[in-house]
Amino acid sequence: MITIRDVARLAGVSVATVSRVLNNNSAVTAETRENVLQAAASLDYRPNANAQALATQVSDTIGVVVMDVSDPFFGALVKAVDTVAQQMNKHVLISNSWHQEAKERHAIEVLIRQRCNALIVHAKMLSDAELANFMDQVPGMVLVNRIVPGYAHRCVCLDNVSGALMATRMLQQQGHTRIGYLSSCHPIEDVTQRRDGWQQALAEQGIAPPEGWIASGEADLSGGEAAMVELLGRNQHLSAVFAYNDSMAAGALTALKDNGILVPQQVSIVGFDDIPISRYTDPQLTTVRYPIVSMAKLATELALKGAAGQLDHTAQHCFMPTLVRRHSVAQRQTVEPVTN
Amino acid sequence: MITIRDVARLAGVSVATVSRVLNNNSAVTAETRENVLQAAASLDYRPNANAQALATQVSDTIGVVVMDVSDPFFGALVKAVDTVAQQMNKHVLISNSWHQEAKERHAIEVLIRQRCNALIVHAKMLSDAELANFMDQVPGMVLVNRIVPGYAHRCVCLDNVSGALMATRMLQQQGHTRIGYLSSCHPIEDVTQRRDGWQQALAEQGIAPPEGWIASGEADLSGGEAAMVELLGRNQHLSAVFAYNDSMAAGALTALKDNGILVPQQVSIVGFDDIPISRYTDPQLTTVRYPIVSMAKLATELALKGAAGQLDHTAQHCFMPTLVRRHSVAQRQTVEPVTN
Repeated sequence: MITIRDVARLAGVSVATVSRVLNNNSAVTAETRENVLQAAASLDYRPNANAQALATQVSDTIGVVVMDVSDPFFGALVKAVDTVAQQMNKHVLISNSWHQEAKERHAIEVLIRQRCNALIVHAKMLSDAELANFMDQVPGMVLVNRIVPGYAHRCVCLDNVSGALMATRMLQQQGHTRIGYLSSCHPIEDVTQRRDGWQQALAEQGIAPPEGWIASGEADLSGGEAAMVELLGRNQHLSAVFAYNDSMAAGALTALKDNGILVPQQVSIVGFDDIPISRYTDPQLTTVRYPIVSMAKLATELALKGAAGQLDHTAQHCFMPTLVRRHSVAQRQTVEPVTN
Repeated sequence: MITIRDVARLAGVSVATVSRVLNNNSAVTAETRENVLQAAASLDYRPNANAQALATQVSDTIGVVVMDVSDPFFGALVKAVDTVAQQMNKHVLISNSWHQEAKERHAIEVLIRQRCNALIVHAKMLSDAELANFMDQVPGMVLVNRIVPGYAHRCVCLDNVSGALMATRMLQQQGHTRIGYLSSCHPIEDVTQRRDGWQQALAEQGIAPPEGWIASGEADLSGGEAAMVELLGRNQHLSAVFAYNDSMAAGALTALKDNGILVPQQVSIVGFDDIPISRYTDPQLTTVRYPIVSMAKLATELALKGAAGQLDHTAQHCFMPTLVRRHSVAQRQTVEPVTN
């Protein structure tokens, strides 16, 4: 690796002089500057970001922590951050945290140590106190999909309970009463919030759903398929299912098809998130829209403002989900729909 | 930001002593070490990765450059790298390059400046010479899905032409002769290689496909849908279509369904890559398997070996694709299949 010493040697000047030239310090003659820049170019010298960050204590890098970039929801989040970053001439470094407490902490620490001046963090396992501590250290750190008390102006979130309520009430308006829930097995608050909304809508109609109406799996296609198979096996005579997210709903569609059950004629399905795949399933998924792109863009703008000390401390950033009506929900048939 | 000077002041020692303690240098008494560590803990001092990397000239970070993490193919690549990294107690920083020459260069430079000691790079726009130059500087840099002459032992790639040949010949064995190609509009060699394989298989049967049999779009669901609509509009009486990738094939399925055309009874479709979605379309996609997880794991291992100076310079790493037969291909019907 070529170092600043090699450049200094070739240019016949001191290391300090090379440093002054490369940092655009004016206390250098034009001749010396030219001399140093030529030496640096001929050696293909690459200034060390670590050294530059040390000198200036900032970097032009935005850090993003998500559970798993290969999940379509988090892919959309990262893409939205990157779009804003490109407009601002910043670059984005991404780190996965896998919904594990130690990995969330580690991912944040790595990006802080890289002196990212803006951080967009999706963290569900760390405590409020630990996140508050991180946010005290890094003014440009913003949370997505979580509120830490006292830091609401740096938290961008969604009302998950309302989204689940909307989805379940819509099924009820179509005459459904026996409505199952396909749950994610991840121990995060979104999962319980969406279950709470589903349960609340059922309670409004005097129904207390038994545990047998809930099946859990990984929050992806194969997890949804497996959970739907489990639910069918229990023979609960459900005429509709609310899924934790669209990937699980799409997996459930496959399980129903494999068992010769028509969607939506025999079973209605509602997803959550409105990721692109929900427009390409057969039938297209009725779902609850999670405006993750708008939310991630706002979070990025807030993070950059925070880094510049320009945040409005009274603002709140809680988004509302909306219903997207496609073709996976129909009126409940009067005959018993699913008997296996 | 708390600095090493604050720790030194509180502990009543020099900055150099604090540095020795934090870098586990043995030339410090147990009492001093304890003293410094307590001061660091009470101040919540976080060692600066930039300073540490400067001191040691390596970091414990693996860098990954891909086109777009929100694309399922690249998501799978990144996830595979992260899996190996976790086993080795390394962390992964990811950067998008958007198939743009300047962004590919910038993404690589950012990660080099962060002193990543291992780099897994998917770059299609930079020249061989520029990539060779980067690889000369960084012994732990490995390319995925590209061969730079003279650096084959640090390149992990797939035979795209053979994959496309397999797919097209399989359609021919089912009696299809008029076979279209849904092409990606990205100007990368994979697109032309897959088209070459398709064209070669047709040529073996004495067919020179007209330009009208090819339609292009973005390499995703909506791009495949639009390209299929375009192909249908041209009324070329195609009985089968080979798609650049599974996302485009899944989008094409939706376009065919919307036009009342049955798959595979009236039109057969083959995808490429075998991403998870291909098992959840209706019908499930017949496709060509791109072993991206195995390839990404190998690339990560090679990169770590390269960083440690332990590479076998005679090895080659070219993978072969395989056919995955599901339900989107059928024997050609003798009646004219698609007339719109």
